[in-house]
Amino acid sequence: MKHIIILGGDGYLGWPTAMYFSQRGYAVTVVDNYSRRNACTAIDVGMLYPVPTLQERAKIWHEKTGKEIKVVIGDLADPEVMRGFFDGRVRYDWAIDSTFSGIPETIVHYAEQPSAPYSLMNYKTASFTLSNNLLVTNNLMFAVRDFARDTHIIKLGTMGEYGTPNIDIEEGWLEIEHKGRKGKFLFPRQASSIYHTSKIMDTDLLWFGVRMWNLRVTDLMQGPVYGMETEESAIDSRLKTIFNYDEVFGTVVNRFITQAVVGYPLTVYGKGGQTRGYLNIDDTLQCVHMSEQTPAQAGELRIFNQIMETFSVSQLAELTAEVGKQLGYTVALKCIDNPRKEAEEHYYNPTYQGLIDIGVKPHYLTHEVMTGMFKLVAQHKNSIRKDVIFRGVRW
Amino acid sequence: MKHIIILGGDGYLGWPTAMYFSQRGYAVTVVDNYSRRNACTAIDVGMLYPVPTLQERAKIWHEKTGKEIKVVIGDLADPEVMRGFFDGRVRYDWAIDSTFSGIPETIVHYAEQPSAPYSLMNYKTASFTLSNNLLVTNNLMFAVRDFARDTHIIKLGTMGEYGTPNIDIEEGWLEIEHKGRKGKFLFPRQASSIYHTSKIMDTDLLWFGVRMWNLRVTDLMQGPVYGMETEESAIDSRLKTIFNYDEVFGTVVNRFITQAVVGYPLTVYGKGGQTRGYLNIDDTLQCVHMSEQTPAQAGELRIFNQIMETFSVSQLAELTAEVGKQLGYTVALKCIDNPRKEAEEHYYNPTYQGLIDIGVKPHYLTHEVMTGMFKLVAQHKNSIRKDVIFRGVRW
Repeated sequence: MKHIIILGGDGYLGWPTAMYFSQRGYAVTVVDNYSRRNACTAIDVGMLYPVPTLQERAKIWHEKTGKEIKVVIGDLADPEVMRGFFDGRVRYDWAIDSTFSGIPETIVHYAEQPSAPYSLMNYKTASFTLSNNLLVTNNLMFAVRDFARDTHIIKLGTMGEYGTPNIDIEEGWLEIEHKGRKGKFLFPRQASSIYHTSKIMDTDLLWFGVRMWNLRVTDLMQGPVYGMETEESAIDSRLKTIFNYDEVFGTVVNRFITQAVVGYPLTVYGKGGQTRGYLNIDDTLQCVHMSEQTPAQAGELRIFNQIMETFSVSQLAELTAEVGKQLGYTVALKCIDNPRKEAEEHYYNPTYQGLIDIGVKPHYLTHEVMTGMFKLVAQHKNSIRKDVIFRGVRW
Repeated sequence: MKHIIILGGDGYLGWPTAMYFSQRGYAVTVVDNYSRRNACTAIDVGMLYPVPTLQERAKIWHEKTGKEIKVVIGDLADPEVMRGFFDGRVRYDWAIDSTFSGIPETIVHYAEQPSAPYSLMNYKTASFTLSNNLLVTNNLMFAVRDFARDTHIIKLGTMGEYGTPNIDIEEGWLEIEHKGRKGKFLFPRQASSIYHTSKIMDTDLLWFGVRMWNLRVTDLMQGPVYGMETEESAIDSRLKTIFNYDEVFGTVVNRFITQAVVGYPLTVYGKGGQTRGYLNIDDTLQCVHMSEQTPAQAGELRIFNQIMETFSVSQLAELTAEVGKQLGYTVALKCIDNPRKEAEEHYYNPTYQGLIDIGVKPHYLTHEVMTGMFKLVAQHKNSIRKDVIFRGVRW
């Protein structure tokens, strides 16, 4: 039975990833310190529905499927917590069989503060973002170096590391010719938030580890994810993943749909020409799975651009309005002064072929997919808090 | 009276910089938490001679020159310590006039863990290097953003950020043409230690701050510095800067001279073809001074390659042997298995013109300069501990 550990297993992507692998016969361990939930409480942003603790969800998952997801509640920024997963000191907070699962073949690293606005609320959230994200990554790298160099690290990056350059965005690498000589380098990166900058740092850190110690690392440069339900969460409504619709932790498609459902004008920042790559939560799981199936080589930092299509913010707002109106909602758009410092019109031409080459079958943001999301969100219409949707965190 | 704060003012470069500016009529504040001294004690590496505390040195400096260097002992990784220098909460640990000096025109940021081997001793020193260096830089950036956007940050980078690429190294930036389109980017970087990687991260962080908040930043991509005495330290022997000759905190020229004086074969790693740029400690002070005189513009990250000439390790060893023999020392070379993972033969062609363009007059590592260093080191021959010279910290 292959063993996979999901760092950040309580998060929007972590929990669905855990169920996905558990369903497919893997031994799964999830780790989290609830820092994202705690941040949501601290800054008072609503979630669309309450989500049971990881321990409760693992128990429900076991009741419904007979499968075990082991749970550890701990702070991975503490190196001893991380190293416990390799040297056997780990103590499970929920498990059917609490003996040590052994060294994992694969680690999926989601254990990062994932919000750009959160990282820029003030100097404390900026520091937390940098130290949490870097220390967890560093602890992971050293644990793998010291105990299990063959373990495959699947790390989440972000397309935001590249920013919006005036040249085509390749998948991670660029061959550069300069004054008659050539070299291959990481694609140039310059991000537009502290969060995104912390992800550039992560990549640089693991690239160091790959060169020095022949680690195996896959870096998934992810675009904003949308969606709520996955095949596994459909088994029981209590298994649904955390869903934020606020400006700080909500991603744009999820936010727009929630806004449309509750009659809150869609908040388009500035000209709305900001173009990014997007993907469905189902495709996130597929991408991680296909990466796990074909691991990076020893000494390889393999980088994939993890997006399936691109949209401008205006296009997303228009699509949301169109689908919403078909469903009988009154959807208005409201252009507001951009609280962020970013290009509102820019060149954007990213490559994203690598994941398709290893077997991912893309889903697209069709009217049908969006209609499905509207229906799921509408079930929770009464609990949507309009006051938390826009907070105006300024850069 | 212009006010300058030296972060990391107890270090090899920090204290000479403080005296240099004080001598030239600036109001100077130094800050340090003695972390480098404490690390030297913890891992038991010798210093060539004992160095008084910052408070004692500031007192001696005042007695000898009538000038005041204010001293604060505090951890700049704590944001409140950093912000105290801008909002007036600071309390001086030594000062003649303990009223608040006001917001500085210039901050020189040396407050980083500066050793590559230290950063790779184990997972704890790696984590400390990353968190200290990133948090101090982030705290500085936010303090300047929140209180004093016009303050000029002079930050120490390292030539090691670039690594040893197969293309010519420019001063910080590179115009890239790709598929018929052009963009200007930070020069590609890939470092060979956790320490050097932390400096790449620093640069990326401040580049974010420059773009978002129009900060003024000068990044000095420094090569290894050699030397001991400066014009100001010659005033009183107790004013000499910290001088390490061990593998962990000592820089290569200083180490080789100390080894030659004590009859310890010069430790050349591998083939000795590792080529780097070097500079005299006097030139470090000049470079910082000239950068202060012509500050970066608002919204400018100005990058200078701060080296004056390049040498391979073998060339340095041969030069040390030559000068040592002229002075009557028996100097042997010993090629040892490289404990680091690095290219031992490589292309290396860095540009370093920017600092000369703003007025720096280079000094070179001549026989005469090296002879002077030999004589200074020889005064402390009896206190040199052979057992701390080589420790074999492996990458």
